[in-house]
Amino acid sequence: MVIGEQDDFVKTDEQLVSHHSEKTKKNLITRLNRIEGQIRGIKGLIEKDTYCDDVITQISATQAALNSVAKILLEGHMKSCVVERIQQGDMDVLDEVLTTFQKLMKK
Amino acid sequence: MVIGEQDDFVKTDEQLVSHHSEKTKKNLITRLNRIEGQIRGIKGLIEKDTYCDDVITQISATQAALNSVAKILLEGHMKSCVVERIQQGDMDVLDEVLTTFQKLMKK
Repeated sequence: MVIGEQDDFVKTDEQLVSHHSEKTKKNLITRLNRIEGQIRGIKGLIEKDTYCDDVITQISATQAALNSVAKILLEGHMKSCVVERIQQGDMDVLDEVLTTFQKLMKK
Repeated sequence: MVIGEQDDFVKTDEQLVSHHSEKTKKNLITRLNRIEGQIRGIKGLIEKDTYCDDVITQISATQAALNSVAKILLEGHMKSCVVERIQQGDMDVLDEVLTTFQKLMKK
């Protein structure tokens, strides 16, 4: 991993900050804009009394899209923030990440 | 189940339509509006370089909210459309519902 090309992470006294590359941020924002459009689309389907099964299919596609965003964030998080904190001897990050995994697994 | 109070279902020659009660539709639209706001919130967090773990937590909350919408739709679908089609002897609905379950389980 070349610092500056990948996402990196800055830890200040009080605050944890994520510094995604501009490319990653743009990718995430584009995906979230598309998801916002999908949500508006689902509202339209409900208003038009579209058959439930077709609406559920659209919801399932939106959930998959949201999962992709979570995967990208998680990858950046693991490969930068988490690695960096472990290298600094901050093992608290492990419990934090495990809690996050559980949240993503629970839904 | 009292017809008219619950969601009901109309099957025309060519088209399957879902007739949710106005109350259910309003509930679903309110939830989807909130989810749209959550998606916009997540975009804001990414733009402000919020710590990845906090962003993932927000995504997880949004996924749970979207799951609730899917559950409401699925309940209405099972208790009206699916029951009605089975009562009409249309057993194709079973494979259709199983495919939908799989989609919701796969993400």
